[in-house]
Amino acid sequence: MADKDILTSGPVCPIPIEDYPQVLLAHGGGGKLMQQLIQKMFVSTFENPLINQAHDGAVFQAPASRLAMSTDSYVIHPLFFPGGDIGSLAVHGTVNDLAMCGARPLYLSAGFILEEGLPMETLWRVVQSMQAAAQNAGVAIITGDTKVVDRGKGDGIFINTSGVGVIEHDVVVNPSQVKEDDVILVSGDIGRHGIAIMAVREGLEFETVIESDSAPVSSTVQALLNAGIELHCLRDLTRGGLASALIEIAVTSGTNPHLEERAIPVREDVQGACEILGFDPLYVANEGRFLAIVAKEHARSALEILQSAPGGDQAAQIGEIRRKSPGRVTLTSKIGTTRVVDMFSGEQLPRIC
Amino acid sequence: MADKDILTSGPVCPIPIEDYPQVLLAHGGGGKLMQQLIQKMFVSTFENPLINQAHDGAVFQAPASRLAMSTDSYVIHPLFFPGGDIGSLAVHGTVNDLAMCGARPLYLSAGFILEEGLPMETLWRVVQSMQAAAQNAGVAIITGDTKVVDRGKGDGIFINTSGVGVIEHDVVVNPSQVKEDDVILVSGDIGRHGIAIMAVREGLEFETVIESDSAPVSSTVQALLNAGIELHCLRDLTRGGLASALIEIAVTSGTNPHLEERAIPVREDVQGACEILGFDPLYVANEGRFLAIVAKEHARSALEILQSAPGGDQAAQIGEIRRKSPGRVTLTSKIGTTRVVDMFSGEQLPRIC
Repeated sequence: MADKDILTSGPVCPIPIEDYPQVLLAHGGGGKLMQQLIQKMFVSTFENPLINQAHDGAVFQAPASRLAMSTDSYVIHPLFFPGGDIGSLAVHGTVNDLAMCGARPLYLSAGFILEEGLPMETLWRVVQSMQAAAQNAGVAIITGDTKVVDRGKGDGIFINTSGVGVIEHDVVVNPSQVKEDDVILVSGDIGRHGIAIMAVREGLEFETVIESDSAPVSSTVQALLNAGIELHCLRDLTRGGLASALIEIAVTSGTNPHLEERAIPVREDVQGACEILGFDPLYVANEGRFLAIVAKEHARSALEILQSAPGGDQAAQIGEIRRKSPGRVTLTSKIGTTRVVDMFSGEQLPRIC
Repeated sequence: MADKDILTSGPVCPIPIEDYPQVLLAHGGGGKLMQQLIQKMFVSTFENPLINQAHDGAVFQAPASRLAMSTDSYVIHPLFFPGGDIGSLAVHGTVNDLAMCGARPLYLSAGFILEEGLPMETLWRVVQSMQAAAQNAGVAIITGDTKVVDRGKGDGIFINTSGVGVIEHDVVVNPSQVKEDDVILVSGDIGRHGIAIMAVREGLEFETVIESDSAPVSSTVQALLNAGIELHCLRDLTRGGLASALIEIAVTSGTNPHLEERAIPVREDVQGACEILGFDPLYVANEGRFLAIVAKEHARSALEILQSAPGGDQAAQIGEIRRKSPGRVTLTSKIGTTRVVDMFSGEQLPRIC
């Protein structure tokens, strides 16, 4: 679908483009234009009883329960990429962070930092995408904020989403629960998000378009919990990828996660792109993939749940928790040698999320 | 106190300045440098049991209750100003938004968008200021996020804080509760924050330094609630000032708030600066002032509470709710004429918060 089709296929932008083709500083200034932008663009798109309270915040009834809170700012470049955009990413990312706490995501806030001169139509596409992603993930965007910075002091759109979710079970999902002999599962093939972004940025063309894996994983986590799987730790594989997530768990838990490289699912085109770009897929960011560390006796049933989830057909058992090297991640390579997996010190891909 | 004194008087920056005088892209890249920044700079400064969970989010026990959630991004320029900085502002702003919902603020998240090249020492000052403000306001910063954007794609530091608070009473604080004959109270003199920022930006010098009123108002709101004041509506007077806040209430509630200009407290130096700069103090932003619309019979006791709160000696009754012009704010000027107070359409002061 050509860009023009995307632009004209959805509902019409509620701010008249002929009057306001671009975001102005005044759209963040607290006056009439800001009120119009908030009401017509945000409140009416994110439509729900709580956002309609039109207050400094949103008030909701919570059960007596453990709640989870999470926040993430999204500064991804470019704003649109195969498989998603900054809007859907901003919903998935925070929904997934809550899911990683074992929580069922309930509510999100949305804070926009817009650069003066941003095309109004671009903002409209992003806002619609956020709402579609929120509906798909079963969350409501209930409160928000809009700031506009002068031209050259931002980069189009930055979005912060913060979220609140409810923990409806007694399972403590935390690195401290990780034990020897637990198994390490991954919810699908890795590396697609990072490579999709990099391909757009570098103008690379592969035989197939590599799409980001950006997706909400909360219903999959709920399915694991509802099935009574003894979940010890969950971690999404965003910045820094599988390796960094697992190293953090190793350090925090003082255990030795061990990986079998041949078991780690990486699509062939992603592997090829990594080789061209000089990346190791272990460190490439994902936005719809997570690690589940579960009790050994639950490995098979957990894996079945992961594999039957949307996008989970490549879910796999990729390793186990050993005793040998506490605080370190080790890996048996495809050729059978064993090595320590180190944290990288710089960054592979700036502004990937 | 000279800037150099400020820089050297506090605890030493936990990231060695000689190695990392500036924020690098790698500080947001998901690797070692990001881990160090998060642990040494943020987690150890914001120290509390919840942030130490080192997870994708923070988990806390909530009572069965109404909760309030709020979010705000802070893009103020300059980062430091008389009476505060972006760090203290980011705490006060969100704490106050929660207070305006009638909630006792509990927890904040902090999302940083840093520009590559930001002096590390600047970040350290801001982080310390946030923690001091959080302690003073009785809230804990329990989860966070750090992104770094390339040079020229941000402006030093942007901060998003989102907050959760608990509503421990049955009072519904909402514009829908505003009734004819209610009285309008303001919690102190207005206009100082906006003028303080503008004076720094324009290099203006007055006989006295005008300091921002930036402060948490949550304990004052709790005092009103605890005294059994029949609070109908609360609103903080940030972007757009007193006029915009009251117009929003008028429109939402369909009532006619009426102001007595001579009763509105504006310091003489602020009034003078407004005249020089061409501003109307009614529209100038505040960061520690709020409106309380209360039942008439509680006006006196509410005012006593406001006046005895920190910084509240100029709190005043500035008007009442009338029947005459529903949905409009009217004002009797100092010379006795009555006019409608309109929303301004552009903005007076960009990047004021």
